[in-house]
Amino acid sequence: MKIAILGFGTVGKGVYKIIKKANVQTQDLSVSHILIRKNKARLMPEMTDDMNEILNDSQTEVVVEAIGGIEPAHEYILAALKHGKHVITANKAVIARYLKEFTEAADQHNVKFYFEASVGGGIPWIQGLEKALRIDNVNSISGIFNGTSNFILDQMSRNGESFIDVLKKAQQLGYAEADPSADIDGIDVANKLCISADIAYDIDIHDHQNLPIFGIRNITCADVKYFQAKGLAVKLIGRTHQKGNKFDYVVEPTLFLDRTLEANTPDNYNLISLNGDTIGKLDFFGQGAGMFPTANAVVQDVLDIKESKSHLKRDFNKKLEYCPELTKGDYLVRSNVNVKDLFADFQPSVEGSYLAVHQIPVGKMHQLMRTVLQKDAAAFMVSLPSQGAVA
Amino acid sequence: MKIAILGFGTVGKGVYKIIKKANVQTQDLSVSHILIRKNKARLMPEMTDDMNEILNDSQTEVVVEAIGGIEPAHEYILAALKHGKHVITANKAVIARYLKEFTEAADQHNVKFYFEASVGGGIPWIQGLEKALRIDNVNSISGIFNGTSNFILDQMSRNGESFIDVLKKAQQLGYAEADPSADIDGIDVANKLCISADIAYDIDIHDHQNLPIFGIRNITCADVKYFQAKGLAVKLIGRTHQKGNKFDYVVEPTLFLDRTLEANTPDNYNLISLNGDTIGKLDFFGQGAGMFPTANAVVQDVLDIKESKSHLKRDFNKKLEYCPELTKGDYLVRSNVNVKDLFADFQPSVEGSYLAVHQIPVGKMHQLMRTVLQKDAAAFMVSLPSQGAVA
Repeated sequence: MKIAILGFGTVGKGVYKIIKKANVQTQDLSVSHILIRKNKARLMPEMTDDMNEILNDSQTEVVVEAIGGIEPAHEYILAALKHGKHVITANKAVIARYLKEFTEAADQHNVKFYFEASVGGGIPWIQGLEKALRIDNVNSISGIFNGTSNFILDQMSRNGESFIDVLKKAQQLGYAEADPSADIDGIDVANKLCISADIAYDIDIHDHQNLPIFGIRNITCADVKYFQAKGLAVKLIGRTHQKGNKFDYVVEPTLFLDRTLEANTPDNYNLISLNGDTIGKLDFFGQGAGMFPTANAVVQDVLDIKESKSHLKRDFNKKLEYCPELTKGDYLVRSNVNVKDLFADFQPSVEGSYLAVHQIPVGKMHQLMRTVLQKDAAAFMVSLPSQGAVA
Repeated sequence: MKIAILGFGTVGKGVYKIIKKANVQTQDLSVSHILIRKNKARLMPEMTDDMNEILNDSQTEVVVEAIGGIEPAHEYILAALKHGKHVITANKAVIARYLKEFTEAADQHNVKFYFEASVGGGIPWIQGLEKALRIDNVNSISGIFNGTSNFILDQMSRNGESFIDVLKKAQQLGYAEADPSADIDGIDVANKLCISADIAYDIDIHDHQNLPIFGIRNITCADVKYFQAKGLAVKLIGRTHQKGNKFDYVVEPTLFLDRTLEANTPDNYNLISLNGDTIGKLDFFGQGAGMFPTANAVVQDVLDIKESKSHLKRDFNKKLEYCPELTKGDYLVRSNVNVKDLFADFQPSVEGSYLAVHQIPVGKMHQLMRTVLQKDAAAFMVSLPSQGAVA
């Protein structure tokens, strides 16, 4: 089975290395092309900068998209599907936006679109979710979806280092991009939560711009120390619930008691949990990033196609309404301006250098926090442990 | 697809309940028979005490064995396979001993023998291992395979309770059997490690009687407190390595530094890790026991059969030699008789109320420990953190 790899970064290289391995050779997989940028040195015979060469090669059955970002990834994936090639990608940003379009194109051209590696990296999360859905309704999903932000928060709590110092370290280690925004502002988590909710509820969110997302950019050593003193650890959490024909969806820093699984998820690990009506809570834990865990998941998708092991069929046509009031929560807000009046309806009380806000709808909280940020760009908020906080 | 359930304990009931659920109904699964013991009240129409009724019912395609133990489970599984029925079981004891025989019988009669739930309960461990083996050599496996013993050790360290008090609590909670031996003496771990090694190395261990297995029966509050003071947590670990044509295999209490994943595996959770030549370490974490996590895994196997999703093919014919010297370790030994001379070759040194033994081959350590136990039936040993200790 001949495979074309688009892009030769961490994931692309990892996939190439695994496919070159003996065991996989016996599965007779081979790399026919590696798409590189125009005017980039063609260091290997498989390398080309011409996407049409790949699209028009009838021998190439599978395209692994490892470019990342929205365009040209979106354009290339669609083109490959329309040329009757199976497509596998770990690109959460493009999937979150175009999952339904890709799925429809794959169906029309009778090929597969698989993306196990896009959420949870090396953790078989998508597969675990799809398997649970074979026999149960999944009514909530919650977890630590982003390894980089977890690494940063873990280091801050272990060594009392500042956010900016740890971020630099993460960038040196290759955990964080030069532009870390997607990781630290919760965009990456939002994309992964989008994909997970689309599958769990069979819906098409495709745009989370107006959904409540708050990252960890503004967290300080003092915040982390204060939480630790209370026996709490802070984690960047994505979570969603479904109830009747409504769902909610949020990405925000959340506090967990010291002995919880979430508090003890170290380094760049992920922990994702689902709740089924009958089967209850299932936890998925492991390395959420890294060359080989991720590339392994991509190659597993290739082998599923080769062995024609089909994944769960979804059409993403169900209509659920996003409801910003579906869950309420308690929060701590840190701001150098007095914002007590803003939260007057939610029994605000001073707690250390924070304003404690009680039983506020999650959507409302994030809306008011946008107002706070206009007055104090360094303001921070964190959700307190509560039923809502864990799936 | 009609399913017969043998036995109506925790797993059998869980499978029955899940199959009665709407979602699964749409997959048209139904329970044709529930095999109960002779002279037991037939409370439900599906119940029978006649195995032949099941074997001779051509409508019943799948048999779920949920009796547990070796016989008659072994006899019934073989009979079902020979009558052309697919068999699914979570019974680690019978699989550890007869995996090869069951696999051959299934092949001969062109049916499937699946057992995902037998190791790791709700964790898709077998599947994860089989997937890794599609593309890589797995050279080591290590982890917390038994939820009951982990619950006991976790409670002892959290609340300083005695082994016997926590054991009683575990029995009340239904975590531990009336005869807890399989859980606390490491037999259950040994069975699960057997199954995992058989699959990983494509061998047939089938008898671990002479393999090094040491449980937690003799651990005391004082032991746990002493380890805690050193920043260490004790866990009952099963682990195996492969090197060339040799493998080792051990079940023993092992110490882990406070911040490791193992140390932070709470309650009755399991954590199993594999190491692949190329893909490196993959961790599998979750609920290792419980009605629904386990029953869910069983029903997933049923659906794999229904959707003819075949699992990895193994014939268990490879010949690897068990080598008791493949790994060496450092140990602490507690005994009320002086056994220093016994360990003279391994730089024994007194450490608190323990004898520290250094760089001793694992097989040798367990052999000498048998001698120690003859002199002091309450003696205890624990392996110190080392490369060998984590896969």
